[in-house]
Amino acid sequence: MRITTVGLDADDTLWHNETIFRLTQDRLREMLSGFADHSTINARLAEVEKRNLRLYGYGVKGFTLSMIETAMELTGGNPPGRLIADILAAGREMLSEPVEPLPGVDQALADLSEAGYRLVLITKGDLLHQEQKLAASGLGDLFAAVEIVSEKDATTYARVFDRYGSGAAEAVMAGNSLKSDVLPALEAGAWGAHIPYPITWAHEMADAPNGHPRFAELASISELPGWIAGLGK
Amino acid sequence: MRITTVGLDADDTLWHNETIFRLTQDRLREMLSGFADHSTINARLAEVEKRNLRLYGYGVKGFTLSMIETAMELTGGNPPGRLIADILAAGREMLSEPVEPLPGVDQALADLSEAGYRLVLITKGDLLHQEQKLAASGLGDLFAAVEIVSEKDATTYARVFDRYGSGAAEAVMAGNSLKSDVLPALEAGAWGAHIPYPITWAHEMADAPNGHPRFAELASISELPGWIAGLGK
Repeated sequence: MRITTVGLDADDTLWHNETIFRLTQDRLREMLSGFADHSTINARLAEVEKRNLRLYGYGVKGFTLSMIETAMELTGGNPPGRLIADILAAGREMLSEPVEPLPGVDQALADLSEAGYRLVLITKGDLLHQEQKLAASGLGDLFAAVEIVSEKDATTYARVFDRYGSGAAEAVMAGNSLKSDVLPALEAGAWGAHIPYPITWAHEMADAPNGHPRFAELASISELPGWIAGLGK
Repeated sequence: MRITTVGLDADDTLWHNETIFRLTQDRLREMLSGFADHSTINARLAEVEKRNLRLYGYGVKGFTLSMIETAMELTGGNPPGRLIADILAAGREMLSEPVEPLPGVDQALADLSEAGYRLVLITKGDLLHQEQKLAASGLGDLFAAVEIVSEKDATTYARVFDRYGSGAAEAVMAGNSLKSDVLPALEAGAWGAHIPYPITWAHEMADAPNGHPRFAELASISELPGWIAGLGK
């Protein structure tokens, strides 16, 4: 068995993402502090996001719309002064946030690329925003292909690794979400590396498939090239 | 010269789209009628959309955010009662609008598919929404590939026709926008068919390349299979 292709998640694997959502949510709580307590605001936003997920999908624009909807509900339909304009501005700031690769990412990708693996970025979210983040990260040239997908399931991974690689059996998928990056990739027949990020979106929680023969839990992306090299032996 | 691949635009080529945006914009004007006259509202919305295009890209979610921003500006930051909630609801309705293929589409695609051409859907917009519309249209099985792109330029067409076909020289691109579907496809070396839709978004206006050897203006998608068949002779 030989690995030819390495799929990598983007948000919270190559660069910060969830942190930016959390910081914006902190700002929303601040803006709404006269109307509800922190846990009520969090709970209401989570509810609105969940209700809208089927229509809005993942990404900043849908999140901004859900923040506005939450603010309308919690202010009884009478948002004060600049509240809605401030939420719109917070959303636009998220979209223009500078992108900084996480520690170890540049080196790990350079090592994998030099070792001859075909790197494929596989991510959910807003198409335009993900392309802009990749461009801003300076990592774009390392990837042979970029697949922005609406859902990460076993079918998606099988299709992407067939199209850009030599099939799932010769591919590794690495990312911070067990639920989106690791479990469906394993189901598709690929290898899966979990590289945890300090915080995880509640919708992305899952149990680690400990003991699975094609699974590894890595402390950092810096361990990825070594782990993959070991698989070829 | 032999055509192997036919690229098709989606919105306003396979199904209505601009009409739904126009109808929603009519509703916005109704909602804001106490604050500004029709042409002021139209002009302000167009301005806000243009300013946000770089960040939001194309699609319903960005349009909804721009409608909210316009409403905030025109109401001096004090939107009455249910205004913002109504705009949010209008945006969600756009996302759940039923999808009906335009007249002649089913037959034309079936004919092209039967004649052995590889059909590729090439469209801008929200990734999730476009996938949902394709699924709802019932046309999904006719396409060999679906490419949802953030920008339609010559590079995009060259890449897509290389990946899914036998290169741009053996490909036709058909759609309702001269600017997005026809001109950049011609620039990439493909053939281009313009199939006008009764209304065109102002951002998509361009002059027809009359006299271009690889260009045709068709009255309806029903003429597409015949035109393409003639190219192979």
